[in-house]
Amino acid sequence: MAKEYVDIATLKYLLYQVHGVEDLLTAERFQDYDKDSLDLFINAIKEFSDRELFPYFKEMDETPAIYKNGTIMVHKQVDVMMKKGGEMGIISGPFDYGDGGLQLPFIIHTASAYIQEAANNHLPGYAGLTQGAAELIVHFANEDLKKTYVSKMLSGAWGGTMCLTEPQAGSSLSDITTKATPTQEGYYKISGQKIFISGGDHQYAENVVHLLLARIEGAPSGTKGISLFVVPKLRMGKDGRLTNNDVLTVADFQKMGQRGYATTHLGFGDKDDCHGWLVGQAHKGLKYMFLMMNSARISVGRGGAAISMAAYQASLEYANERPQGRKLSSDGKKDPDEKPCLIIEHPDVRRMLLLQKAIAEGSLSLVLLAAKYYDIIQSTKDPETKKKYGLLLEMVIPIVKTYPTEAGTLSVSNGVQVLGGYGFCSDFILQQYYRDIRIFSIYEGTTGIQSQDLLGRKVPMENGKALELLLTEILHTITEAMEFDELRSSAKILGDKIKLTRSVLDFLVPFAKKGNYERFLSDANLFMEFLSHVVIGWLWLDIAVNAQRNILEGDQTYSKTFYESKIHTMKFYFKYELPKTGSLAESLMHPDVLTTNSKKEVF
Amino acid sequence: MAKEYVDIATLKYLLYQVHGVEDLLTAERFQDYDKDSLDLFINAIKEFSDRELFPYFKEMDETPAIYKNGTIMVHKQVDVMMKKGGEMGIISGPFDYGDGGLQLPFIIHTASAYIQEAANNHLPGYAGLTQGAAELIVHFANEDLKKTYVSKMLSGAWGGTMCLTEPQAGSSLSDITTKATPTQEGYYKISGQKIFISGGDHQYAENVVHLLLARIEGAPSGTKGISLFVVPKLRMGKDGRLTNNDVLTVADFQKMGQRGYATTHLGFGDKDDCHGWLVGQAHKGLKYMFLMMNSARISVGRGGAAISMAAYQASLEYANERPQGRKLSSDGKKDPDEKPCLIIEHPDVRRMLLLQKAIAEGSLSLVLLAAKYYDIIQSTKDPETKKKYGLLLEMVIPIVKTYPTEAGTLSVSNGVQVLGGYGFCSDFILQQYYRDIRIFSIYEGTTGIQSQDLLGRKVPMENGKALELLLTEILHTITEAMEFDELRSSAKILGDKIKLTRSVLDFLVPFAKKGNYERFLSDANLFMEFLSHVVIGWLWLDIAVNAQRNILEGDQTYSKTFYESKIHTMKFYFKYELPKTGSLAESLMHPDVLTTNSKKEVF
Repeated sequence: MAKEYVDIATLKYLLYQVHGVEDLLTAERFQDYDKDSLDLFINAIKEFSDRELFPYFKEMDETPAIYKNGTIMVHKQVDVMMKKGGEMGIISGPFDYGDGGLQLPFIIHTASAYIQEAANNHLPGYAGLTQGAAELIVHFANEDLKKTYVSKMLSGAWGGTMCLTEPQAGSSLSDITTKATPTQEGYYKISGQKIFISGGDHQYAENVVHLLLARIEGAPSGTKGISLFVVPKLRMGKDGRLTNNDVLTVADFQKMGQRGYATTHLGFGDKDDCHGWLVGQAHKGLKYMFLMMNSARISVGRGGAAISMAAYQASLEYANERPQGRKLSSDGKKDPDEKPCLIIEHPDVRRMLLLQKAIAEGSLSLVLLAAKYYDIIQSTKDPETKKKYGLLLEMVIPIVKTYPTEAGTLSVSNGVQVLGGYGFCSDFILQQYYRDIRIFSIYEGTTGIQSQDLLGRKVPMENGKALELLLTEILHTITEAMEFDELRSSAKILGDKIKLTRSVLDFLVPFAKKGNYERFLSDANLFMEFLSHVVIGWLWLDIAVNAQRNILEGDQTYSKTFYESKIHTMKFYFKYELPKTGSLAESLMHPDVLTTNSKKEVF
Repeated sequence: MAKEYVDIATLKYLLYQVHGVEDLLTAERFQDYDKDSLDLFINAIKEFSDRELFPYFKEMDETPAIYKNGTIMVHKQVDVMMKKGGEMGIISGPFDYGDGGLQLPFIIHTASAYIQEAANNHLPGYAGLTQGAAELIVHFANEDLKKTYVSKMLSGAWGGTMCLTEPQAGSSLSDITTKATPTQEGYYKISGQKIFISGGDHQYAENVVHLLLARIEGAPSGTKGISLFVVPKLRMGKDGRLTNNDVLTVADFQKMGQRGYATTHLGFGDKDDCHGWLVGQAHKGLKYMFLMMNSARISVGRGGAAISMAAYQASLEYANERPQGRKLSSDGKKDPDEKPCLIIEHPDVRRMLLLQKAIAEGSLSLVLLAAKYYDIIQSTKDPETKKKYGLLLEMVIPIVKTYPTEAGTLSVSNGVQVLGGYGFCSDFILQQYYRDIRIFSIYEGTTGIQSQDLLGRKVPMENGKALELLLTEILHTITEAMEFDELRSSAKILGDKIKLTRSVLDFLVPFAKKGNYERFLSDANLFMEFLSHVVIGWLWLDIAVNAQRNILEGDQTYSKTFYESKIHTMKFYFKYELPKTGSLAESLMHPDVLTTNSKKEVF
């Protein structure tokens, strides 16, 4: 195991200096907080993660969640996470005071979960899904349901899940077949199978509250006929005691990574005695689910950012300690009598480390940006501000879900490579990060689905307004950067990329206008990668503007080398990553159409 | 498990039609072979792999090689591989008749090993390293050593290894410290530790013959003081019986992939009784090792190609069977009452499958090309031909080692993504391919080391002659392709990439000339990726020329759709992969120098 898993200095720098968290605190919603109290919370989370999460990370991989006699046995730290974490507010944090929450800014809750996830990504999901499930109840369910479930969930006593996926439907939610039959008593009888349910059951959960999508008998077909239900594992009996609700734990999926995080197969209503309570109105289930989806997608991106940071820390530590090989002399030879250098002195190792740093910190900045938008939307009283940031958040969400997970996978792979053969061995931790992060580009809508969302829904949204707002934000940073000699050439390059974005869309959008949606969206994945690089390039330029300004103003919050390292990493991103937009644009605007015919003989 | 793991039709097409194996058979060395006998051999290997290798692939992952009481316990198929495989000639194949071999063309041996590796990549290494060790003995050792070891090794009765890596030295062979002390009796006493020794020991090996690098006392420092020794686990006693040679199996490394393939830590001479016999002359060990390294590097590239093919077959099978979602209609909507389509009909899934196909088959063609060069060198009597293909082989070797392993990793990751959540689950095989292939860009010189070799040694070789020969071959294919309307635009694009290659080198080479080798080589990794794309683009264009010619000539060896699928895949490569050269060139010629300073504060 490495000694460190997160860079708290950079996290706080991004929070306070780059994303200006203190500006958020002027809102009434957050009036009880100041920087000191937020720092206290973050420090307490770091201390909790050091003690209760990080030390068990490898062990949880080696002793995975496993199905035994009808229940799933998980590592004992799951209990600690839920109970102690619950006490600390890791579940209740962002909720309203009135619902038992702390009204913590979502960006601070995000930073907190990020630290936990970097420490041990097998654990935060148990709390995170409980939070998501409670959020759905708080926002859309009636008072009875709220009273029965929310406080138990926010304290961590009861777990919560999202039950969407079914074996035959996968990502296609319109094909959900789980049935809900109304009864005279007000509840529905639920029957069906759900798979891939994270944290669906375990021996420490006194109860698990499933937020489940099902189809009420006679509902319209497709996504317009799906309703949302609260389906607890144990329901409240008439005597006020918890009683079995006919939710069967069928199995636990064994996986190549995140093995300490139970992924369950649940059966509902095998004995025709599974009660579910409708949340909100019938047939609006998917709408409710998607209103909450933004925070879920921020969480997945956050996980990718956290794992790539942890892997970066581990490979950096190795590179700083491992002597091997020698630097090249001016005749291109090496002197064997010279002492070996540390591998961090080799340019190619430095390139791999800087790539990891650029991706890990760039991803973190993106995730925090989305969380900040979320906070502005929640806390502003100005409808125009709410509307603006609402559109900005919608626009970036698919990228927030995708970039940290896809680039994160690349980043961790570079971390493995830094260690050479040791990177592949179980004695070193890199291989576990490599296995763990691979699920994140599948979770909560695969990269393919996010890309369709980005190009097919978000770009055309309100006649392109969301995209224009985003590009305006980027142009603003470019203008700022033009003021600094050190940043001007990078600013110009990013300006060119904005123009390139328009060229790409000028090529693609006409396909949609002509009704050829399949062609319009066939390379949505490439567009996602393209726009992600533009956005991350922007965020790095924004960091560099801040750092450069601090250097010139002699700001002492961090050292000059700290600020310089940020500018250096921005330049690295502009040299090694941003140019990828050029080849992606070439592919996107290529005349050949090669993936939209349906002939099987191509393969 | 999937049903199929290899595409034999494409393999034979590449062998006979694209790479013209029959032309090789005119050489005296191969005079006993014709296409029928080669086909018989390939078919027998396929049948053997179907029966003895593929069915045990998952099992070997789930019951990994494990150290117990001083020996390493491996799966029983290791024994079958060595003994039955040995009988079939999988070890002896390419050796001379005089050494007990079959004088099989190396390209056919490569095809055979490729099939085995696609079936179960945990097994062929046991035979492959035995072969490599025997090759060193055959080429460089004295008759006594040959007589003692070679026939036992070629039959599979005794295993063989390459013992290079030591804990403190890693990739830096100049820092090897294993000691060899001369004795009056002619042998040397060996003492030292070797790690990462593949197939270093197991319960089925009657004996294991280690080809070990060590330093004779008083030898010069660095790579010029390293000698090669034969060090058997059991040595021949004076009574003609095998006796313990003080080689200790210290441990077996547990890894994230290739878990059935033992990776051992060996100790030599703990009791001061380990005998080793010098191979060839003292201090020439590394030279001998590197003379054999080309075939070892072809083998690693072959493994990457094989795994990406097997993963492609598995994800293709899934995509052809799994219904999910619907195609978009002309208003961009989906009709939920329509029957779900197979996922192979979704453009993004087709893109991922075509990417896999382009990488898997392109890699295979590259590996076969190198094997063909190898055969020409071995079998020609014309010194100029030998020289030409010698240079061509040297030029492509680092790419052959790297592209199939790096692009293969990307390819398999796309295979995982095709399956969505199932791709991450142990019940499906994709996750195993994903874990297994990750070691291949580390084996036998990491990608970083291959890239230094490519740009630092191969490009400048004989004043750039090797590179010129390669570019001439590419230009020849471009000229051929220009004759076909269907291929002309692709041919022109590849022509532009040749010019771009020269521009990149015109930018980089002056750094070397000015003695700034560190700067010259700092982005060697990017140059590797750049030139790999040019080379694979070339090989795809070459395939397309062949396919187009066959279509026009009405060749019936394969169906028209088969030929069309090859042209389609070429176009895919030219649309989606080849453009990456543009952004790589931009990065390579970027003025910023960001990885060659040695300040640690950047991180």
